[in-house]
Amino acid sequence: MKKIAVDAMGGDFAPQSVVGGVEKARNKYPDLRFMLFGDEQKIRKILTSDKNIEIIQTTEVIDMNDEPVKAIRRKKDSSLVRAAYAVKEGKADALFSCGNTGALLAAGLLIVGRIKGIARPGLLSTLPVLAKEGGAFNLLDSGANADNKPEQLYQYALLGKYYAESVRNIKNPRIGLLNNGTEPHKGSKLTLEAHNLIAANSSINFVGNVESKDILKGVCDVVVADGFTGNAVLKAIEGTAGTAMHLLKDTIMSAGLLGKIGGLLLKPSIMKIRNKMSASQYGGAVLLGAKAPVVKAHGASDAETVYYTVKQINDMLENDMLSKFTDYFNKNV
Amino acid sequence: MKKIAVDAMGGDFAPQSVVGGVEKARNKYPDLRFMLFGDEQKIRKILTSDKNIEIIQTTEVIDMNDEPVKAIRRKKDSSLVRAAYAVKEGKADALFSCGNTGALLAAGLLIVGRIKGIARPGLLSTLPVLAKEGGAFNLLDSGANADNKPEQLYQYALLGKYYAESVRNIKNPRIGLLNNGTEPHKGSKLTLEAHNLIAANSSINFVGNVESKDILKGVCDVVVADGFTGNAVLKAIEGTAGTAMHLLKDTIMSAGLLGKIGGLLLKPSIMKIRNKMSASQYGGAVLLGAKAPVVKAHGASDAETVYYTVKQINDMLENDMLSKFTDYFNKNV
Repeated sequence: MKKIAVDAMGGDFAPQSVVGGVEKARNKYPDLRFMLFGDEQKIRKILTSDKNIEIIQTTEVIDMNDEPVKAIRRKKDSSLVRAAYAVKEGKADALFSCGNTGALLAAGLLIVGRIKGIARPGLLSTLPVLAKEGGAFNLLDSGANADNKPEQLYQYALLGKYYAESVRNIKNPRIGLLNNGTEPHKGSKLTLEAHNLIAANSSINFVGNVESKDILKGVCDVVVADGFTGNAVLKAIEGTAGTAMHLLKDTIMSAGLLGKIGGLLLKPSIMKIRNKMSASQYGGAVLLGAKAPVVKAHGASDAETVYYTVKQINDMLENDMLSKFTDYFNKNV
Repeated sequence: MKKIAVDAMGGDFAPQSVVGGVEKARNKYPDLRFMLFGDEQKIRKILTSDKNIEIIQTTEVIDMNDEPVKAIRRKKDSSLVRAAYAVKEGKADALFSCGNTGALLAAGLLIVGRIKGIARPGLLSTLPVLAKEGGAFNLLDSGANADNKPEQLYQYALLGKYYAESVRNIKNPRIGLLNNGTEPHKGSKLTLEAHNLIAANSSINFVGNVESKDILKGVCDVVVADGFTGNAVLKAIEGTAGTAMHLLKDTIMSAGLLGKIGGLLLKPSIMKIRNKMSASQYGGAVLLGAKAPVVKAHGASDAETVYYTVKQINDMLENDMLSKFTDYFNKNV
């Protein structure tokens, strides 16, 4: 029986979407327990049944404009900080929020804490491989760090491997290193050193360097990057996909009558593309290297996304991903 | 009267597309002169008139698989190396190739040479702002360097400013620094220092940090980045846009009859999007900081793209961009 500590107040549509998604997940996964941290009155208004759900009253909320580290130090009775302490104190096995990303990362690093041997936990984000039905790739670090060292990229290769095995259900996942060329001699000082470290570990199915133009095509299952570049690439992909969809919509809208009819006839196909481009079914971003799963779903998450994110957390807990991490890093670091 | 040294043998469709584009440009710009380096017999077969065009016979070609620095050292009679020497020796004012990018960069750095005071020339690429008719932004360094220092990013801000003024015809262009957040306190060690350097120069219209998800929306005219991140973002944008267009096409093709009719009716609109996403009208990528314009058009360039790239070179020469660079860096470095 595993328990998830949920920040019920984080996100644009909280607590509605959070509570709705948690209830859906509760009905699906009878072995899970939930601790909902937040405004009890508001939560109770939405909650249809408190089966397997415990509500913990908190009085503060960390919002999107709060400075992360300050916020988790000062807002001691916020839903996020209280949820993080529940994990730290062993009352819960995972931390989940749709709120302020920086604050969640800070709570993960400073309250939940790091696995021994892991200097800089990395944020893993899962994105769809557009070319392949149901395909996806996992990018880390997608933004927890602004500066990384080669050894940290090496650890991301291992963390990503165990994640892909546990959650994405991929045997011997293909690990690629994000680089400015595919040839082994290409790269920055950082990627050249990281390349050698990763290549030297035969337990890693290392496919070598990968370029950002190819990762959407599914050249590997896990893309290892420093947090600065990973963040830039993630946002470039999201920005371009979003802009392309907008452009398509605007172009149809401003087309003549025939174009509009065409748009109408194509609507089911366009909706299919939009769904394919949406990453919500893969859950949220995970801070890998923390002592427990620390998971961030998008601020605009609806109940459906919250549900998928709980599913993702359940996969990590059920497959005991954390023990795999700690076993490996206790033995090898 | 300005002269452009052209590698007539570089590119997937060389020399056809190169010669075709040069002839079109020659007809449009009567003050330009061209030196075409390559296989004279092949060039003469395509050339309709040698007005303002001189052909220089060369016997070697650097292809896409050649290792750049080795190639320019060994293939002394290649069309690229000979063209670069023409610029170095003052016989031509700019260097143009659709061939091996690395070899062109190496020729630019090692043969044409750097402007005094500029340690690491940067590659500038122009991309369309999809949200705005005719809008574009200029990204540098988009891949000439794998590791950059803060002072180099500061120089890119200045080089980009003069480029945008001379070629894109923008008064007081808005300069942004690519970063992992827009707040001034955000960033890597590199971007935090670069931010301070750029912000301290009041001649730069610095709009601060910009994120990769926003640059396609036109938040600034020049995006300054280190070459590793700039390259990753450029390729992520190109990869995502390309994949999205493919996906749209595939989805229409596999749709039912009504969907196919819809696709047919929408074809003009989709072609419009494709044209908007195409960067060919903005010319090629320019190695800024070299002693003369060193310009790379896409390997798959057709005559039209070659024509636009010559137009771009003409803008740099006519507006005397290089003197602006040298004046500034001779005074201030």
